[in-house]
Amino acid sequence: MAPITNGRTLFNEIPTGFPEPGKTTVYDTSKTIDLESVPLNGGVLVKTLVLSADPYMRVQMRQADIESYMPPFIVGQPIFSLGVGKVIRSENNGFKPGDYVYGLLDHAEYSMPNPDVPVFGITVFTPEPGLRYSAYVGAAGMPGQTSYYGWKEYANAKPGETVFVSGGAGPVGSLVIQLAKQDGLKVITSAGSDEKVQFCKDVGADVAFNYKTASTLDVLRKEGPLHVYWDNVGGTTLDAAIENAANHARFLECGAISQYNSKDGVNMKNLDQIYARRIILYGFLISDLAPKWQEEFYKVIPKKLASGELKFREDVTQGLENSGQAIRDVQIGTNTGKKVIVVAQE
Amino acid sequence: MAPITNGRTLFNEIPTGFPEPGKTTVYDTSKTIDLESVPLNGGVLVKTLVLSADPYMRVQMRQADIESYMPPFIVGQPIFSLGVGKVIRSENNGFKPGDYVYGLLDHAEYSMPNPDVPVFGITVFTPEPGLRYSAYVGAAGMPGQTSYYGWKEYANAKPGETVFVSGGAGPVGSLVIQLAKQDGLKVITSAGSDEKVQFCKDVGADVAFNYKTASTLDVLRKEGPLHVYWDNVGGTTLDAAIENAANHARFLECGAISQYNSKDGVNMKNLDQIYARRIILYGFLISDLAPKWQEEFYKVIPKKLASGELKFREDVTQGLENSGQAIRDVQIGTNTGKKVIVVAQE
Repeated sequence: MAPITNGRTLFNEIPTGFPEPGKTTVYDTSKTIDLESVPLNGGVLVKTLVLSADPYMRVQMRQADIESYMPPFIVGQPIFSLGVGKVIRSENNGFKPGDYVYGLLDHAEYSMPNPDVPVFGITVFTPEPGLRYSAYVGAAGMPGQTSYYGWKEYANAKPGETVFVSGGAGPVGSLVIQLAKQDGLKVITSAGSDEKVQFCKDVGADVAFNYKTASTLDVLRKEGPLHVYWDNVGGTTLDAAIENAANHARFLECGAISQYNSKDGVNMKNLDQIYARRIILYGFLISDLAPKWQEEFYKVIPKKLASGELKFREDVTQGLENSGQAIRDVQIGTNTGKKVIVVAQE
Repeated sequence: MAPITNGRTLFNEIPTGFPEPGKTTVYDTSKTIDLESVPLNGGVLVKTLVLSADPYMRVQMRQADIESYMPPFIVGQPIFSLGVGKVIRSENNGFKPGDYVYGLLDHAEYSMPNPDVPVFGITVFTPEPGLRYSAYVGAAGMPGQTSYYGWKEYANAKPGETVFVSGGAGPVGSLVIQLAKQDGLKVITSAGSDEKVQFCKDVGADVAFNYKTASTLDVLRKEGPLHVYWDNVGGTTLDAAIENAANHARFLECGAISQYNSKDGVNMKNLDQIYARRIILYGFLISDLAPKWQEEFYKVIPKKLASGELKFREDVTQGLENSGQAIRDVQIGTNTGKKVIVVAQE
C-alpha cells in the first residue's frame, strides 16, 4: 500500500486573544504515512474518527514552560484533544485492530498515541448500543464525567433547593441541569443565544435566560437565592451569584470561559460575602474525582443517553481541516451543543 | 442611692467610608440610672468592665433593613459589641450578683442585656486563674474561637506544609500563627506596620512582612506555594494568594477588612486558578462551628493563654467615651494587638 497524506492541525503561534485558524493553528498536508509499514515500536496505530473541541484548550495555548493542569501545545507540532479512534495495527497486548479507543489524540488523521501515558493515554471502550461514538467525547466522556463527578461530590443537593448553572447549553451545563432536576431542584440557567436558551428549557431548566439580552443580576435577584451555583464561566457572573447566594451555598468552580481570552481581570464586589454567607467554593478537576466516580458513571450514564432519558446535543464540524475554526467557535461560544469534529468514517 | 450618669456611645449616622467618632457615633451622658431601683422585669443589671472593638462592627453600620450575619446598629441607640461585665442585680435564676458575664453588651456603663436571646445573649463564665478578664473578648473569646474553630475544621494541616496568614498581628491571626506552628507548618504572615511584624515574629512566624512596604506578591512567589491561606483581609491579597496557591490548597475565608470601608470592588486576575488548582475556599462564621468546638476550646485555650504557652497582646483604650475612636482605629489598623476598651474597674 502506498503512503497516503496524513493531514494534521499544527500549533503555529500563541494567541493573545481568541485563537485564529490559519494563524494560531495551521492545517498541514505535507506529511505522508504508510499504514502498513510505519514502525510501531511496540505501540499502536490509530485512525482518528472524532475529535473534541473544548473550552480548556485555550489554556493549552501558552508558553510551554508555564505549568497548568493540562499539558501545553508545542509550536510546530499537532494540537491534541480528547477523541475517539479505531485501532488499525497494534504491537501492544492491550489493543487489537478494530478496537475503539478513547483518550487524548493528536489532531491528525492517523497517529500513534502512547498507550502507557497515565491519565493522558488511550483506553479501549465498547460503545453502548444505540449511542454514537462521538458521544464519548461529550456527554458520555470528559464533559459528562465532569458534570457527574462534580455534582455527586460537591453539590450536596436537597429537593426544593435552587441551583444556578451558567453555560447551561454546553455539554457540562446541560447534563448538570438534568442531574439537578432529577434531584428535585429548581434550576436557573444562562446561555449565550436564544437557541441555546431553548435547548436549556428542552432539557428541563425551570428558568433559562440569554445573558446577552437579560441582566444576570436581575434574574438571580428575582429567582434566587441560590443554594448551589455551578460555575462554568467565572467573571462577573460569579460575582452576581455570590451576591445572590443563600447562607451555606455550595459553589462548584468548574470553569471560567469568560476569563480565558483576556488578561484584564474582573472587578468583584461581593467576595466578602463568601465568609459572611459561609459559602464554600470547590475548585475541582475530573482527574481527582475519577477514581471514586468513574465506574458508576459508565454504569449509569451511557445507558441513559442511549435511551434518551438524558438528552445531549452535538454541533458537528466536518473535516479535520476545520478543527482550528471549531476551537475558535467554542471560545467565542457560537457552537450550539457539544462541538465535535468528525475526521473520518470507519 | 441617687441616680448616677449612665454614659453611652450611641450610633448617630451611617458612615460612607471609615467611621468617625463624633459623627458616626456620639458619646452621650444625658441618661441617668438608679442601680438599686431600676426595674429589671425578670432580667439582670450588668456593670460593663471591658468592651471589644472588632473589624466586623463596620458591617453593623448599615441600613437596618439590610440583612447580614450580625444585627445592625440602630441610629439613636447604643452600639454594642462583645464585652465582659459583672452582674449587679438579677431577677433571673441563671445569674447572681458578682457573676462575670460574657456576650454582646451595649456600649453603656450599665445595661440590662436580655439573657434569653440565643447567640447574642450573655453567659456566665469563670475567668481562668492568671488570665485577666479582658482576654475573654480576645484570645479567650470570639477572636480566639474564630482561630481555633476555623483551623481545626478546615485547615487540614500537615507538617511541612506552608500557610499564609494575612492580618497576622490581630487577635485572630496571631493565634492562627501559633496553632499552625504547633502543627508543624511554615508560617508566612503579613501585617501593616513594622511593630506588628515584630509581634508576628515574636509569636513564631517564620516569615513576616509589612505589606505596606513590601510586595505581597513578591514575598509569596519567593516563599510559597501555599497549602493553606488564612484570609483576614480579602481584596488583592486574596488574589495574590490564589496566584501562589499549591494544588488542593485550602483557603479559610475569615474576613475581608480591606473591603469593609469601600464599595469599589477589587480587580481579581486569578479567580480561574480556583478550579485549575482545585482550591477550596471555606467561608465560615464561628456561630456555625461553636456546637462542635466550643467545649474543647474552653478546655484547652484559656489555660495555655494563662501559662504563656500561647501569646496574645492587647491594645487598651481607656474610657467608654473613646469607644468611637477605638472602633475607627481597628478599621484603619492603627491598633497593635486586640483592641479592648476598658470601661470600668470592678
